[in-house]
Amino acid sequence: MSNTTTPATLAFEQDQLVLIDQTKLPGQLVTLRCSTVPQVHDAIRRLVVRGAPAIGIAAAYGVCLAATPGGSPEHNYRSVLEAVSELATSRPTAVNLFWALDRMKRVAEKHGATDNLRLALLAEAQQIHQEDRQMCQRIGEHGAELLAHCHRVVTHCNAGGLATSVWGTALAPIYHLHASGHPIEVFADETRPLLQGARLTAWELTQAGVPVTVMTDSMAGSLMQTGTVDAVIVGADRIAANGDVANKIGTYPLAVLARHHQIPFYVAAPSSTFDFSLQLGSRIPIEQRAREEVAGAEGLETVPAGVQVINPAFDVTPAELVDAIITEKGVVTTPNREKLEQLLCPS
Amino acid sequence: MSNTTTPATLAFEQDQLVLIDQTKLPGQLVTLRCSTVPQVHDAIRRLVVRGAPAIGIAAAYGVCLAATPGGSPEHNYRSVLEAVSELATSRPTAVNLFWALDRMKRVAEKHGATDNLRLALLAEAQQIHQEDRQMCQRIGEHGAELLAHCHRVVTHCNAGGLATSVWGTALAPIYHLHASGHPIEVFADETRPLLQGARLTAWELTQAGVPVTVMTDSMAGSLMQTGTVDAVIVGADRIAANGDVANKIGTYPLAVLARHHQIPFYVAAPSSTFDFSLQLGSRIPIEQRAREEVAGAEGLETVPAGVQVINPAFDVTPAELVDAIITEKGVVTTPNREKLEQLLCPS
Repeated sequence: MSNTTTPATLAFEQDQLVLIDQTKLPGQLVTLRCSTVPQVHDAIRRLVVRGAPAIGIAAAYGVCLAATPGGSPEHNYRSVLEAVSELATSRPTAVNLFWALDRMKRVAEKHGATDNLRLALLAEAQQIHQEDRQMCQRIGEHGAELLAHCHRVVTHCNAGGLATSVWGTALAPIYHLHASGHPIEVFADETRPLLQGARLTAWELTQAGVPVTVMTDSMAGSLMQTGTVDAVIVGADRIAANGDVANKIGTYPLAVLARHHQIPFYVAAPSSTFDFSLQLGSRIPIEQRAREEVAGAEGLETVPAGVQVINPAFDVTPAELVDAIITEKGVVTTPNREKLEQLLCPS
Repeated sequence: MSNTTTPATLAFEQDQLVLIDQTKLPGQLVTLRCSTVPQVHDAIRRLVVRGAPAIGIAAAYGVCLAATPGGSPEHNYRSVLEAVSELATSRPTAVNLFWALDRMKRVAEKHGATDNLRLALLAEAQQIHQEDRQMCQRIGEHGAELLAHCHRVVTHCNAGGLATSVWGTALAPIYHLHASGHPIEVFADETRPLLQGARLTAWELTQAGVPVTVMTDSMAGSLMQTGTVDAVIVGADRIAANGDVANKIGTYPLAVLARHHQIPFYVAAPSSTFDFSLQLGSRIPIEQRAREEVAGAEGLETVPAGVQVINPAFDVTPAELVDAIITEKGVVTTPNREKLEQLLCPS
C-alpha cells in the first residue's frame, strides 16, 4: 500500500469523496467520486467502499457533503442531521459506521446552525481519517510482536489497506513483518459470496510484494490438518463487551478449526469496533444480503431458479475461541469483559 | 429422480454411453453420447459425469466401447486391456473407478480373445449398474433409520442421484424419508469451486420436491451455532481401512464443526468405495485440479493474474469425527478397522 501510484482507498478532494471502486477490483482499478450524501450511501451499500474502519471514514466525509458552501446555516444544519440519519441506514453490522456518525453528530450539535459548521465537520472527518492511519500503524506494531514466530498465516475476507485508510487491521502486522524482512506468507480465503479475499486481499498483498496464495473457504481445514498454518488473523465488524466478534461470514468456522488444531486465532480491530452497549455477540445485528450474491455471478445462474438461498453477511465468533484481540491501544489475550474494559474504557 | 421425463444420470443405448452433461446443469439439461473410450475418459476428467459410484459405472461401460462388433477377437481383447489402463488415468481419488475397472479386467482375462468377450463385458457393466441401483435402495433404507429423528440436514457437494445411477448415497435416505411423508429439509453447501451443491444437489432435490436451501460453504457453522441443523450427511470418494474418509474438499471442516456442536456426522457410501489396501486416510491420493476452477468463472477474473492458487479436490476426514458410515450392507457406528472388516469383508 506504499506504492504512490496507487490511489488511496479513500480521499477527500475538492469537496468530493474519492473512493477506489472495490467492486471493480482486481479487473479494473478505478475511482468513484461522490459529491452528495445519497451517492455515499449507495457506495457503502454496494460495497464500493467496505471494511468497518473505511465505512466509518467514508460516512464521516459523507456527512460533510451535506453542508454546502452556498447553503444557509439553518439549511446546512438540518441537512447534516438528516445525512447522519440517512447514512446510518446504509449497513447494519459494522459499528464503526455509527461510531463515526455519532462523532459527526456531536460536532454538528456543538456548532449548530452557524457559519463554522462546515469547517468543523470537515476537521472532525479529517481527524477520524488521521486517527485511522495511526490506528493501523499501532495495530501493525502490536500484531507483529504477536506474530513474531509465524511464517504462514490464514486470513479471511479483506481487513487490509482497502478496509481502512492504509495498511489495514489484520493485514497491518503482515505488512509490518514483511517490511522488517521477516519471511511471511498469507493464505487468503477467497471469501464467498463476494470474493473479497480473492479479489482484494490477494490484490493488495501482491501490490506490496507479500507472497499470497488464494484458496476456497473450504480449504483452510486441510492446510491446518497438514501443519501448514501457524496462525489465523482476521478483522472485525463489531465486538461485543464480552469479546464476541462479528466478522465476515466464514470467520466462525475458521475459529473452530483453529481451536481444533490448536492454532492461535487472532482478531485485529480498532477500539472504534467495540460496542460496549452489547453484552453478548448474539445481540449484534447480522446483515442479510441479496439472494443474487450467492445464486449467480455476472449473469451466470449457479442455483436453480426458485431455490431458496440464505446470505448472512457476518457470523459471530465467541470470545472463548479468540486467543487475542489486537487493538491500537494494545493486545488483550483470552479476552473477556474485564480485560477489554480495562484497556479500552479507562475510568 | 423418479420423474420419468428426466433422463437417467447414465445409460447404455445403441452401443453408446449416454450421460447427463452435469457441467451444464442447472442452466441446461442435455445429454452427451460417448461412443469411444477417449470420449468417456474426457467425460470423467471434465466432470460431465462425476460422483464416485457414477464414475465406476461410466468407466465399466467405457471399457465395453473398446470391443467393437466388427473387431477381431485379438484386436478387441487388446483394446479392452488398453481401455482399462487408459480409463484408470482419468481421475485419481475415487476408488470406485479402479474397483469397476478391476472387475471389467477380470472378465476380460477370463474370456480372453474370444467372440464371447464383448457380450461378457456388457453383462458385467450392466451388473455393476444394477448393483448400484440396489445399493442406493439399501443405503436409503439404512440411512432413513439413522435419520429418523432428523428434520434439517446439511449436505456437501452432490452425493445424490446424479452421483450414482439413481437416488444417490447421502441423498438416498433423504429421498426415502421424503417419500414416506417424514418432513425433511436440506441445507446444501454450494461447494466451491465447481458448485456441485448449488448446481446439482439443489436441482435434483427440487425435481423430487424435497425442500432445499443453498448456502455458501462458510455458512454451515452459523446454522449449527443457532441450533438449526440436526445432522450432516455426505458421500465419499474413498474410505481407508480404518474408516478415514476422502470426500469433496470442505467435508473435513464440516466434520470438525459438527463435532464442535455435537451434531452427528454421517457418511453414506457403497462397499465399493472402501479401500482396505490403505491403512490410513493420509495415504489416499488427493487430486489437484486446475487453477482456473478457483481463479475465474466463465471468463470472469476473480483472482489477480499471477497470484498462486491451491485447488485440492478432496480432503480427508479422520474416522474419529465420523459418527456412522452407512453402506448397502448395514450401518457402522463409530467406525474402526475391526467393525468395517466384520461388515464388509466376511471371511
